[in-house]
Amino acid sequence: MRLGVDIGGTKTEAVAVDGTGGIIQRLRLVTGFGHDAVAQTAISAINGIAELCDISPSEFTSIGIGIPGVVDGQSGRVSHAVNLGLDDFDLASAISESLGISVRIDNDVTAAAYGTYQFLRPGASMGYLNLGTGLAAGLVIDGKPWRGARGGAGEIGHIPVDPSGLHCGCGQRGCLETVASGSGIARAWATDDPYPARSLFDAADAGDAAAIVIRDSFVNGVASAVRILILTADVETIVIGGGLSHLGDDLLSAVRGVLAEWAAASPFLASLDLESRVLLMPQAFPAAAVGAALLGGQIRETV
Amino acid sequence: MRLGVDIGGTKTEAVAVDGTGGIIQRLRLVTGFGHDAVAQTAISAINGIAELCDISPSEFTSIGIGIPGVVDGQSGRVSHAVNLGLDDFDLASAISESLGISVRIDNDVTAAAYGTYQFLRPGASMGYLNLGTGLAAGLVIDGKPWRGARGGAGEIGHIPVDPSGLHCGCGQRGCLETVASGSGIARAWATDDPYPARSLFDAADAGDAAAIVIRDSFVNGVASAVRILILTADVETIVIGGGLSHLGDDLLSAVRGVLAEWAAASPFLASLDLESRVLLMPQAFPAAAVGAALLGGQIRETV
Repeated sequence: MRLGVDIGGTKTEAVAVDGTGGIIQRLRLVTGFGHDAVAQTAISAINGIAELCDISPSEFTSIGIGIPGVVDGQSGRVSHAVNLGLDDFDLASAISESLGISVRIDNDVTAAAYGTYQFLRPGASMGYLNLGTGLAAGLVIDGKPWRGARGGAGEIGHIPVDPSGLHCGCGQRGCLETVASGSGIARAWATDDPYPARSLFDAADAGDAAAIVIRDSFVNGVASAVRILILTADVETIVIGGGLSHLGDDLLSAVRGVLAEWAAASPFLASLDLESRVLLMPQAFPAAAVGAALLGGQIRETV
Repeated sequence: MRLGVDIGGTKTEAVAVDGTGGIIQRLRLVTGFGHDAVAQTAISAINGIAELCDISPSEFTSIGIGIPGVVDGQSGRVSHAVNLGLDDFDLASAISESLGISVRIDNDVTAAAYGTYQFLRPGASMGYLNLGTGLAAGLVIDGKPWRGARGGAGEIGHIPVDPSGLHCGCGQRGCLETVASGSGIARAWATDDPYPARSLFDAADAGDAAAIVIRDSFVNGVASAVRILILTADVETIVIGGGLSHLGDDLLSAVRGVLAEWAAASPFLASLDLESRVLLMPQAFPAAAVGAALLGGQIRETV
């Protein structure tokens, strides 16, 4: 049995899975903030799942953790995880010291990509497009996660696609993330609704002219991300996940609509059949926790 | 000993190499036009190298061929090789029927990427940016060529980066290839010079205002291609090759200059160190022929 933990900005999801990713136990916790509290959340999740499975943490075949930010898989250090209050934090050691076992840490988008890949098995390659506060992708190439030479594969949110576009927090202009992300929507669409993207889509459906422009720009940006992933890496399938994937079929059909329009104007794009290569993440599937479990290293007792 | 043939629009280059790609014999021929003439060029190249090596074609460990266009590596069929007058042509069978041996056919950019990778060994991953009439890239991931799920990896020339950019032959607008390619330069810079790119750079160096605008747009496009390859696939190194790489250090230093400017404005880009990850293809190295030789399948006598 393998154990996986997905540490998110607000909640942490943990699972016990079998060797193929089938879920045996599942648990949710509120995520703490800062080095000690995040480590404690991970430890509580591991202990909680172990208890549900009625075994000790060291009896799992592997334990893996997915977390936002820049992750060094070798050392288990996590940096730039702003929403969690972590920077240059040795999460792997903090957990090892408390539980006496080794764990593997991965970026949460990589973990979600791999979990989704194992769940859907859409051929030998897949891109996972994470539409959350930001925009990033995880790649699976030849059945294995491709993290990149320096851990930066899939950072497509910061590819500029419009020289006269909006300024981006990264210092560039016209980045995909300025339109195709939750933060992009929040910037353009002022609302008190707890689900700004849903409110935007509803207003556009109701005929609000400003909402239509913002929604179309968002959808166009998501379609552009699909095009970039396929034209660069030519992964067989793109799966849209992340918080905004809860928009569901409204999002998927809008993105497919844009891809179909592009194909009508370009025989080259039509030959790539982008429209049928985009899927939506199955809702309620804890992809990052399952992926982290499957990517986790062998358990070694460290004390 | 392995044999590789690179069939280009005007000339065909063939090599015999050892197991690590070291060149033992080398030969150049003028490429014919149309199905029969191209097949005959490949056969002459194979026979010519065999004669130089004083063995028969069937005695090579492998024979591989790199050719422009869409190539089905399994069947050996070549499509959309417009400059060679080929479409839906079974080149592998034409060669087999004449010589009685099997050969492997690959896209020439894939072959050049792999040949360059074996020559430079710049880590476990590399992107080869082919600046020719068009713009395309070849990827090497985990030491192996990544052709993509449908053979389309690296088609970055048709990623639009400017909504108000030029119309592209592919039916889209603002594609990278409209500025960062030989055809892009030819469209913008009218000249009788046999080397329009060299003429453009010289005119820009001499202070011609129009030339400076066109050159800067070209260089910016090449730098954008580097950024897209690293932000998407995070290959360790990008090597610029293709006909326009003969611009040499003038091109490399201009591209690095743009990447340095971007890094100065964006801490995120600065952290990726794009500037030091771009190299120029070593001139006069027959990358595609060497790569084709190394990618070639085992020789099987077919008659």
